Amino acid sequence: MSLRVLGVDPGLTRCGYGVLDAGRGRGASLVDVGVVRSAPEDTIDLRLLAISRGLEAKLEEHAPDVVAIERVFSQNNTSTVMGTAQVSGVAILLAAQRGIRIAMHTPSEVKAAVTGSGRADKKQIQTVLVKILGLSEAPRPADAADAIAIALTQLWRGPGPVRLDATGGARTSAQSRWAEAERAARRARESSTSRF
Amino acid sequence: MSLRVLGVDPGLTRCGYGVLDAGRGRGASLVDVGVVRSAPEDTIDLRLLAISRGLEAKLEEHAPDVVAIERVFSQNNTSTVMGTAQVSGVAILLAAQRGIRIAMHTPSEVKAAVTGSGRADKKQIQTVLVKILGLSEAPRPADAADAIAIALTQLWRGPGPVRLDATGGARTSAQSRWAEAERAARRARESSTSRF
Repeated sequence: MSLRVLGVDPGLTRCGYGVLDAGRGRGASLVDVGVVRSAPEDTIDLRLLAISRGLEAKLEEHAPDVVAIERVFSQNNTSTVMGTAQVSGVAILLAAQRGIRIAMHTPSEVKAAVTGSGRADKKQIQTVLVKILGLSEAPRPADAADAIAIALTQLWRGPGPVRLDATGGARTSAQSRWAEAERAARRARESSTSRF
Repeated sequence: MSLRVLGVDPGLTRCGYGVLDAGRGRGASLVDVGVVRSAPEDTIDLRLLAISRGLEAKLEEHAPDVVAIERVFSQNNTSTVMGTAQVSGVAILLAAQRGIRIAMHTPSEVKAAVTGSGRADKKQIQTVLVKILGLSEAPRPADAADAIAIALTQLWRGPGPVRLDATGGARTSAQSRWAEAERAARRARESSTSRF
């Protein structure tokens, strides 16, 4: 079974998601893409609940090996950044509750991984996505395309540099616990054969 | 049964919680107070999962009517603000999943409600808490005392001004949905008599 990544572009009004399966070499195939929405006129609790339910449904449907999430910075657009951070917290929690590993990538890491330039514009990114995934046009809305780009970054870049622990070992205790959690999740998946 | 409020001072290393029951007049009684911790050396997913499990246990144990959470601003202490926002998103989600109403108060609203001054210092707040709750000393650590202050703000100030909807009615659709969710939650609680 090839590696499956669920990319998430966190947002309160539109939260983009995109699921990719790793192909040969730098190939990838598009499994699902879209946005989960919440109504701007609703209160924050109802909005986070709506986003959470939408993402949970995608996690259950696609059982990704990794959830890759765009890293949010407080410098960006402060009027929406708190909601975006709250959605990213929800996405991280939903993955953690299922024992699915998470990875985070900054917007410039995504641009650099996908196009080779950290200053690429959306059109350049979409051109690569269309070509790599063999699409007839770029996924819409932009949040959906962004989620695919984040997932592709994860496939191409992987989890990033491994931090050394105090003993010089390549695995931190957190990573060891992840590995353990992943094995447990895999066993759970393999035992629920009705879903595959 | 008197109104029960769970106050939350969101934080990734120490997330304060405090449970108050409304008394007569401006009285209140302390039900529980403390902090849920996560290890700074762990990855963000494990940390949010730890905080979430701790808060879930308190929600189940105390079944509050309202969860009052400190509102986070992106201007404050940017090095930790994203983690704090993620924890607040998690706390809001956990309440929403249980049909518990949430309320948010800014730090200066809390200071003003508890001491009468939006510029009060921590010592002034703690003096009020000790007196109102009949304690021998202020709850520690500070995050735990802050959570109690947030809960007390909710008891004394309530949900704040009611927004008018487009028809001039006093209830927004979100509020109506909340009322409905609260009724459903109450029915569920009343039917699970073994817990009370």
